[in-house]
Amino acid sequence: MQIIFKRNLFLSLLCMLFADFLAAQQPVEQWNRFEIELKHAYRGNSFHDIKLTAKFTNKDTSYLVDGFFDGNGIFKIRFMPEKTGTWTYVTSSNVNALNNRKGSFECIPASGRNHGIVRVSNIYSFKYADGKQYYPVGTTAYAWNHMSQETQQFTLQSLKNSGFNKVRMCVFPKEYNLVKEEPEIYPFVSTGMEKGPDGKERKSWDLSTFNPEFFRVLEKQIDELNKLGIEADLILFHPYDKGRWGFDSLSMDVNFKYIKYIVARLSSFRNVWWSIANEWDLVKYKTHDDWIALSKAVAAADPYHHLASIHGSTAKYIEYWLPCYTHASIQDEAPVMNWGAAAILRNAYQKPVIYDEVGYEGNLQSRWGRYSGEEMTYLMWMGAIGGTYVTHGEAFMFKDATDTIFWAKGGMFKGSSWKRAGFLRRIMEEAPGPLEMSDVSRDFKTASGGDGHYIIYFGKEINTYWDFNLPQKNGSFSRLTSGKKFKVEIIDTWNMTITSVSDVFETASVEDYRLFDKERKKIRLPMNPYLALRVTERKQ
Amino acid sequence: MQIIFKRNLFLSLLCMLFADFLAAQQPVEQWNRFEIELKHAYRGNSFHDIKLTAKFTNKDTSYLVDGFFDGNGIFKIRFMPEKTGTWTYVTSSNVNALNNRKGSFECIPASGRNHGIVRVSNIYSFKYADGKQYYPVGTTAYAWNHMSQETQQFTLQSLKNSGFNKVRMCVFPKEYNLVKEEPEIYPFVSTGMEKGPDGKERKSWDLSTFNPEFFRVLEKQIDELNKLGIEADLILFHPYDKGRWGFDSLSMDVNFKYIKYIVARLSSFRNVWWSIANEWDLVKYKTHDDWIALSKAVAAADPYHHLASIHGSTAKYIEYWLPCYTHASIQDEAPVMNWGAAAILRNAYQKPVIYDEVGYEGNLQSRWGRYSGEEMTYLMWMGAIGGTYVTHGEAFMFKDATDTIFWAKGGMFKGSSWKRAGFLRRIMEEAPGPLEMSDVSRDFKTASGGDGHYIIYFGKEINTYWDFNLPQKNGSFSRLTSGKKFKVEIIDTWNMTITSVSDVFETASVEDYRLFDKERKKIRLPMNPYLALRVTERKQ
Repeated sequence: MQIIFKRNLFLSLLCMLFADFLAAQQPVEQWNRFEIELKHAYRGNSFHDIKLTAKFTNKDTSYLVDGFFDGNGIFKIRFMPEKTGTWTYVTSSNVNALNNRKGSFECIPASGRNHGIVRVSNIYSFKYADGKQYYPVGTTAYAWNHMSQETQQFTLQSLKNSGFNKVRMCVFPKEYNLVKEEPEIYPFVSTGMEKGPDGKERKSWDLSTFNPEFFRVLEKQIDELNKLGIEADLILFHPYDKGRWGFDSLSMDVNFKYIKYIVARLSSFRNVWWSIANEWDLVKYKTHDDWIALSKAVAAADPYHHLASIHGSTAKYIEYWLPCYTHASIQDEAPVMNWGAAAILRNAYQKPVIYDEVGYEGNLQSRWGRYSGEEMTYLMWMGAIGGTYVTHGEAFMFKDATDTIFWAKGGMFKGSSWKRAGFLRRIMEEAPGPLEMSDVSRDFKTASGGDGHYIIYFGKEINTYWDFNLPQKNGSFSRLTSGKKFKVEIIDTWNMTITSVSDVFETASVEDYRLFDKERKKIRLPMNPYLALRVTERKQ
Repeated sequence: MQIIFKRNLFLSLLCMLFADFLAAQQPVEQWNRFEIELKHAYRGNSFHDIKLTAKFTNKDTSYLVDGFFDGNGIFKIRFMPEKTGTWTYVTSSNVNALNNRKGSFECIPASGRNHGIVRVSNIYSFKYADGKQYYPVGTTAYAWNHMSQETQQFTLQSLKNSGFNKVRMCVFPKEYNLVKEEPEIYPFVSTGMEKGPDGKERKSWDLSTFNPEFFRVLEKQIDELNKLGIEADLILFHPYDKGRWGFDSLSMDVNFKYIKYIVARLSSFRNVWWSIANEWDLVKYKTHDDWIALSKAVAAADPYHHLASIHGSTAKYIEYWLPCYTHASIQDEAPVMNWGAAAILRNAYQKPVIYDEVGYEGNLQSRWGRYSGEEMTYLMWMGAIGGTYVTHGEAFMFKDATDTIFWAKGGMFKGSSWKRAGFLRRIMEEAPGPLEMSDVSRDFKTASGGDGHYIIYFGKEINTYWDFNLPQKNGSFSRLTSGKKFKVEIIDTWNMTITSVSDVFETASVEDYRLFDKERKKIRLPMNPYLALRVTERKQ
């Protein structure tokens, strides 16, 4: 029986002798991972027979954390400290050898790009735990982690060069008419071949155990994303199986064990979000109530309450108001195709809304995968102006289904909207705070990002001029009054340019709910679509 | 002590002698009202000290119904039988004289225009209890019932001549800058004058009792609406008081007693809907949690589960998913001003959605009260095409605030959209069933009302031609296939005309999600806005 602190091989060896002493010497940054390794040879099912938890305590704060079996007689307990100072722990197990193991470590402040776990902030938006605002600008690569090593490297490189800070990805491999790649590794150990429900030969699995190596690979991928500052919006279940592996039709008992296991392994990864399912309603083998039960199981198992949601097919909503969902992860085009609709669901749910699928830029036959880059960019902006977030997606296929279609496989971006997503992120991050409609349900184009900070988006409209004018209402901020001076920048959301207008504008008094420039000044616009304005107050 | 069955004065007298015998002889139609009168002289507070309920039983069906004190030593118990056959009852009270009173009556099938209570049907829509579809086409006259007798008569006459089948109205009188009329009668008995919170003199009330006469007047008004086939969407609380009567700032104890009293009096009125509040969030004296508690109290008190909701100010949503709300009663323009947004909330809530305020046709300065008739009509159609319902409203003031502005006071319609509301109702009622989006989130203009029945609405678009084409998807109905023959009618929603196109169209095979006429026939359109098409299959 050994206790190993995996930071450094040399330290690990020393640990065998001075475990507790060294544990206290090995500082861990806030929201980084602390890991305990315990060895115990057990002849039965180490995954399910052995109960192992640890209680971590730092003054008046305690967490009860599940351990898990990592194969080869090794049990692990991982912990994400959220608070600096000394953490002590004590394990609890139904096996003597794993029970009452004690230790401690020092948690030091986060540094560098470590801003902590992302959480809901101010009802509709997100912040890192250190207080830095987080604006989700995500993309989708459902099965990038199941592709060849080369494709995986390309994907990480693509993401690194992009402005994305979230990626939707599946734990289980994906079978689809455009995605036929066989993964290298599986979450369960194969026991041979069997006849699937469709009569075809397929691998059979030992569903009583997991394949730890599969999860170690996934963890490495999530850590790679973390290095890039990208949140892994991890999809736990999906319908894209069609009897090929049978992972969509596991028994509920196995589903719950899988949840317990993956949450024990991954909840200490600060950049993990739980997406209970993609297109839950298309999974034939689970009922609506099964999904609610699985969602609650994830929330119950996760001591840190990572962001969690579930995602349906087009316009298929679920009870996003349940506490097990921190935000709404929606597939629906309607809220972002036309003016003013994005904010409606934000107002209804009183939670952050991410339109995680609104169609894809691409050249597929299917209507979901053939938007122009302009259209995809437009939809992202339409969501943003409503105080919500739209996830990007790209589906270009130039040869045949062996092409790396980014939507499922990752690889390299071939479209044009991915760059504009990064530009939109920049605009959001340059605002004092998250956008909200300035004059909700009346002015569908103007958003406030703080006192004296407005973004006006014209969408597909092509205008010659804009009369300087702003609504009196200003979202949750102070109403606009006369005598305020503003500068204006013209943002070309497609060409990604920001052009300052040299004039300074000054608000006159309120005229029918709006304030114009006192000299009725106007701005010449370049008569292109997809323009926005950034109107910022000049403090005197 | 007497038992009186109020149907007929002669019978009432006989009842004193042969109460139970006669009760059994006096048949009551399903969903009509059966009433027991009991007399008991009590020296204390008859409203609150005396508990009185009756259990009504018909075979395996039982209802426990609250009685109430109606003044002058008279207690009443009212019951709405939903099932034909013999109903027996027995009373229960903490006063011997009112306890264990028994009787029975015969419930006979409904006849004539009595279709029963309206309930939610098929998740998103409504039906009368007898199975007849109910499409809410409502208007608003918040305080018509507090106006002069003459105005009340005008209002009823206006409603009779309209196509409206629902009206929003308040129990408490309304104080607003455009509504200053003093009501003739109040829900509480005045005890003199006092200084209000604003320092002004106002009536003081004995809040420990109710004024039964006030409620009798309200009941008569609701019965008058019932005769016209109009549902009374009865608003129990509202913020339009401003210290004038103080009915917005009653203690929660009085609020709960008021709910118990009014529900006991009115739940046997089949055309009553409970609107817990109008603009609940603008009431200064109650918290969000108070509103939830009051909403639950209404649901708990009502043995018939009348339709119930609550209404906020613009874009102010509440937890409409709670079981105490049968539908969402929303104030928000955004869902009906632009394409495709109305259906979003229907999909999210999985309940019927009524946009009970989206602004008013009128000539007021306020932007909420100055739509054109065309705009009001447009908004009603935009809701309808999304499978939701939009309530009409009218706010014309030609002289000053003493004018009867229909929105608050009723009177006579002065606008143009009220007629179009009736026309829309006709179109809805001529469909086989409620409309739903044919191809949700993709085609924002086409709704299905059953197999082979489509309504296509063009809104403000002005088109020269329409190429016959329909989506393959058909909501919850069978997908459209080739070889189906259709006739087309052009509906002018503004001019209220329906023009048949003489051609017959036949669907070709599916072409990129849609089916065109096999000869690619098109229809010449009259180049007006606000047109719709009704496309109906010709069965061979």
